[in-house]
Amino acid sequence: MGRIVITGSSGFVARHYLRYLEEKAAPVEVVGIDIDSPDYTGSDFKYIKLNHKTIDLMNTSHLSDIIKEFMPQRILHLASFSSVAFSWQEPIMSFRNNTNIFLNLLDAVRKVNPEARILSVGSSDEYGAVNEEDLPLREDSPLIPVSPYAVARVSQELLSKVYANGYGLDIVMTRSFNHIGTGQKDVFALSSFARQLTEIKKAGLSGGELTVGDVSVVRDFIDIRDVVEAYNALFERGRKGEVYNVCSGRGKTLNAMIDKMAHILGIDVTLAVSQNLVRPADNKIVIGSNDKIRRETGWNTRYSLDESLRDLLAYWMAR
Amino acid sequence: MGRIVITGSSGFVARHYLRYLEEKAAPVEVVGIDIDSPDYTGSDFKYIKLNHKTIDLMNTSHLSDIIKEFMPQRILHLASFSSVAFSWQEPIMSFRNNTNIFLNLLDAVRKVNPEARILSVGSSDEYGAVNEEDLPLREDSPLIPVSPYAVARVSQELLSKVYANGYGLDIVMTRSFNHIGTGQKDVFALSSFARQLTEIKKAGLSGGELTVGDVSVVRDFIDIRDVVEAYNALFERGRKGEVYNVCSGRGKTLNAMIDKMAHILGIDVTLAVSQNLVRPADNKIVIGSNDKIRRETGWNTRYSLDESLRDLLAYWMAR
Repeated sequence: MGRIVITGSSGFVARHYLRYLEEKAAPVEVVGIDIDSPDYTGSDFKYIKLNHKTIDLMNTSHLSDIIKEFMPQRILHLASFSSVAFSWQEPIMSFRNNTNIFLNLLDAVRKVNPEARILSVGSSDEYGAVNEEDLPLREDSPLIPVSPYAVARVSQELLSKVYANGYGLDIVMTRSFNHIGTGQKDVFALSSFARQLTEIKKAGLSGGELTVGDVSVVRDFIDIRDVVEAYNALFERGRKGEVYNVCSGRGKTLNAMIDKMAHILGIDVTLAVSQNLVRPADNKIVIGSNDKIRRETGWNTRYSLDESLRDLLAYWMAR
Repeated sequence: MGRIVITGSSGFVARHYLRYLEEKAAPVEVVGIDIDSPDYTGSDFKYIKLNHKTIDLMNTSHLSDIIKEFMPQRILHLASFSSVAFSWQEPIMSFRNNTNIFLNLLDAVRKVNPEARILSVGSSDEYGAVNEEDLPLREDSPLIPVSPYAVARVSQELLSKVYANGYGLDIVMTRSFNHIGTGQKDVFALSSFARQLTEIKKAGLSGGELTVGDVSVVRDFIDIRDVVEAYNALFERGRKGEVYNVCSGRGKTLNAMIDKMAHILGIDVTLAVSQNLVRPADNKIVIGSNDKIRRETGWNTRYSLDESLRDLLAYWMAR
């Protein structure tokens, strides 16, 4: 039976990854590590033997003990303070809860379980101040991070490379683009829009006002169900020490995403820009190429943008 | 009277910078911050009004209080665990005592003294896995860090850029190349060689054996007195948000440096390679271009390699 550690196991992506494992219907043992308790339990799963450890990844000795005892073959590192907005407010805390916790994990694995394959989940924010001629972004495009969060993610990736090449650890890296999916917190733009739009709909109104940041930015949104399948493909067929974009390859303005959702719900909206939501510096256009992961692992996206948005809105309608 | 904070004030570079300030013979107020106490006191200086704070830069509130009370115009950030070898042994501690302490400093300055000019001292190690066609290294050459220390320094630089461009802080950055100078600890190759060579000389022997790592690597060595003058030039004329190489522009193998020193002392040496001193991954050739700092600040080197090595050997002979 396979043994997998998931860090950040109480989070949005972890829940979708667990659902993916459950749907594979093959027995697997999972140790989840998170500073928070999850909103699910082992009895929610038939094929997953689940154990949860509520610890802070800054606690290196506790972390090391868990890895040493469980000796996972795979470690999916999802733990992250992944809000860019938060990183501008609390850069020290953001950096610690991205880069430092990851370094602690790497070093524990180096010492007690160096054969494990680690999937280091990074972010499209690493590309940063993109030049239009570099689009779509490829894995060898320059990294010009412009937010504290993005720097933390680049640092994580650079550490991954040192641990892969210098210490010989089996690490595969991602730069994961914007997610669409149920259960994502509404501090993220798309979930915030979906929540606000469905509130208007549920109130029986034909329209209303949305509070937004800069909606002219272009992002590459990918369904979370495609994301977790990509992570599985990288565990199985990713090359050690390599980084892979996990993206749809298609770019949309946030404005267009709002229009699509409003259209699905059949409502009209006006936008109110809140300066609190506009960032000191931001990437204008982010569109990735997924050629590498498709070519090397055979993975591909399965969900259309329309399906993803309909499922997202259905989730928020039901809340 | 100018007010300067020096972090890492008990270290080798700080002592040379203080000597430089003293030689300028203009009154200046300095607050030194270091986890260790320095081996000098205020009474060693005539022009410098010195105050030392023995604190850990991980202590953010204490640090912030010091900055707020003193309100320096300039902050020279020298505090660093700057040994590459140590970073391979203790990557977590190395990262914390490079990147995290610097982030703490940046964030304190952002909150309580955002007008201060910060000199963020980085390292030539940031260039990492250099391609020969990129030599001499310019500030826009790619950064491919290969050690934990180098990653920590790249992270520091990326944070500097975010704080300069995102928060508007007045930060100038360096990538400082290998130093030659008195007072440098002998965990660094050149000081180790000088110590070992002068021990042979002082024992009255005509030759002996030196314990070394990989001496085929090429490095760009610059006199510490030229380094501190460059830092002053960057405080005065460096451009905000810009990074500058601080280097001599000339490359030598470590082997050639040993030969030169043995020649000055008139002794013969054989080399014994210790695998403990050979690193998991290392940069083969590091030679910088100092065009940018010379062009923009008028600074230039003043010490020849021969002068630097003679002064270094005289220092170790006297110990």
